[in-house]
Amino acid sequence: MQVFRVKKTSSESKARVGYLFTSRGVIETPVFMPVGTQGTIKSLTPEDVSALGARIILANTYHLFLRPGPDLIAKMGGLHEFMQWPRAILTDSGGYQIFSLAQYCKLTEEGAWFKSHLDGASYLLTPESSLEVQAALGSDIRMPLDACIPYPCARQEAERLTALTTRWEARSKKAWQRQDDGSLLFGIVQGGMYKDLRQRSAEEILALGFDGYAIGGLSVGEPRALMLEMLEASLSYLPRERPVYLMGVGTPEDILEAVWRGVDMFDCVLPTRNARRGTLFTSFGKIAIKQARFKDDQRPIDPECSCYTCRHYSRAYLRHLFLAGELLAYRLNTIHNLHFYLKFMEEIREAIDNDCFASFRRHFYEKTKGGN
Amino acid sequence: MQVFRVKKTSSESKARVGYLFTSRGVIETPVFMPVGTQGTIKSLTPEDVSALGARIILANTYHLFLRPGPDLIAKMGGLHEFMQWPRAILTDSGGYQIFSLAQYCKLTEEGAWFKSHLDGASYLLTPESSLEVQAALGSDIRMPLDACIPYPCARQEAERLTALTTRWEARSKKAWQRQDDGSLLFGIVQGGMYKDLRQRSAEEILALGFDGYAIGGLSVGEPRALMLEMLEASLSYLPRERPVYLMGVGTPEDILEAVWRGVDMFDCVLPTRNARRGTLFTSFGKIAIKQARFKDDQRPIDPECSCYTCRHYSRAYLRHLFLAGELLAYRLNTIHNLHFYLKFMEEIREAIDNDCFASFRRHFYEKTKGGN
Repeated sequence: MQVFRVKKTSSESKARVGYLFTSRGVIETPVFMPVGTQGTIKSLTPEDVSALGARIILANTYHLFLRPGPDLIAKMGGLHEFMQWPRAILTDSGGYQIFSLAQYCKLTEEGAWFKSHLDGASYLLTPESSLEVQAALGSDIRMPLDACIPYPCARQEAERLTALTTRWEARSKKAWQRQDDGSLLFGIVQGGMYKDLRQRSAEEILALGFDGYAIGGLSVGEPRALMLEMLEASLSYLPRERPVYLMGVGTPEDILEAVWRGVDMFDCVLPTRNARRGTLFTSFGKIAIKQARFKDDQRPIDPECSCYTCRHYSRAYLRHLFLAGELLAYRLNTIHNLHFYLKFMEEIREAIDNDCFASFRRHFYEKTKGGN
Repeated sequence: MQVFRVKKTSSESKARVGYLFTSRGVIETPVFMPVGTQGTIKSLTPEDVSALGARIILANTYHLFLRPGPDLIAKMGGLHEFMQWPRAILTDSGGYQIFSLAQYCKLTEEGAWFKSHLDGASYLLTPESSLEVQAALGSDIRMPLDACIPYPCARQEAERLTALTTRWEARSKKAWQRQDDGSLLFGIVQGGMYKDLRQRSAEEILALGFDGYAIGGLSVGEPRALMLEMLEASLSYLPRERPVYLMGVGTPEDILEAVWRGVDMFDCVLPTRNARRGTLFTSFGKIAIKQARFKDDQRPIDPECSCYTCRHYSRAYLRHLFLAGELLAYRLNTIHNLHFYLKFMEEIREAIDNDCFASFRRHFYEKTKGGN
């Protein structure tokens, strides 16, 4: 089965538009996947998410493993049925949340030992058990367990963790092959902030062979220039005929630069989390809705925006809801920010398709003045 | 202008169906008004509320007075425009929240002195200023400031507060007449738990003359039998050709009994607040969605319910969302509970219209076994 087809490649950059084929529909790339951590895109119904144009969402294996648990979700007919989302779902391996959220985390050859951030209970997640959990969830695209590399990280440790990731991904592929349920499995390139380790990792992962390739361990606190350098290094060893997914990134600017360099898939909590904190993306940069200057501002968040929130509500009302801690604030802000991201991706696809991505990119920076 | 028309009166009880005419539409009674405390029905958009069948909502003058303030709302074009709710709004006077929420509260002849629960700032709300605030909000039905009587309350104090309420309502009517903006003004009957004071209050308020009559100071901690006794006493002195509003009440059973005795209008935070606490109304009584018995329950909250939540989600999913503290839980639960209340009112109207309200009432108690 064909996984990915490039529709058009930019003549000005490495950007391309393409189609990602999943058992739950075809997804146009470059694509942004809203994050539905605990089996819901926070504050939205699946109909809201669909109406915003999302065709694939991400769900966190770590969170769903702990609560309500994979057995329960399997019993309920899988995650799609449980949360009533009929389109594609990509699940991560759980590794990153173990690394960033768990009370305790230790990596051994076998897998990742950790204590739950909810109640301190101890668990071991292995490459095999991560894929078992993902199979119980019934996701369409699955990720292998990888060993996250902190920033900064000494070379020897980065080397050790990158090698461990390769061995884990080999085990993951075997476990996934036994599942044989029509899902896709992506490989993850690690290597920390070392170009040659990025190359080695890419070559090893490529040799194993996956449906698509993800670039992990970026946007973990390193300077932006270093992030872009590592992104370029990783990308240069990946095959152009496979979809490339930059995990956990990022701002609109990050996405723009990554698409420019050849990335096809993104996920990030930024639009949804920022929304809940009152930070809103606009065509002229970010705004904090709580600011006093919006007190009696009758304009929508962004006069250029066509989202439900901007079609109906004033900045003054949204500021009031936010300051009053009203639940509707989170929903209206989330709708706006996700609309911004998904519309942004649509415009990026159009620009690449019309081969005017360079001018689109220039225009974006002029409008936002680096404000986003 | 005609304010109220009785369409049909039950032959078995004092219940009636009728029409309440406001400048923003005709409202079928008996009616339940969802509470939108701070300019929003918590977690819902106006479209959600409208789709649930609400034709009038209640907004709290106390809350909106403190935040974002009447001047701001007036500047934004009034509360309807501010919150994008095009249908009728009833505003209370602010008196009850001063009594129940404010840090400090003292009633003088002039009005109610209080300190904000938000920041401790001192204010005086008078009968005149309450109506000014309500005019700034632009509500369709307004309430006069009344002196709330605690439970229990010594007779002398209840007498004093009831008399004060009458004087305040006389001033309120004068202030409202000067507004002359097409809004309706209701009178409020107080009198505490003393039948003769209820009679005296009703007669004095009636002599002042209002568009409709509200019964205040019930469901404030007194036994249910006493509440019903005072309700009946108050109702017996009110004209049958005017709409009667029982303020802040109550459970489905309370509403059923009050409609039986002749009440036309209700508001209560119960369906919305219970929803946020995971307590859900069903045709077979209340349930607490967090209970372990719903862990893997694939059924909807109420198999007889046709609301959005019940058409899409399992108890297991709703339990998961609630335990995980997910924002979507509040919205889905609120949709269900408000649907229950609004459908319940619709069924009550139908039963009265078909003159089978007695059997409807009996059937309701059989089904819920007093569980709600």
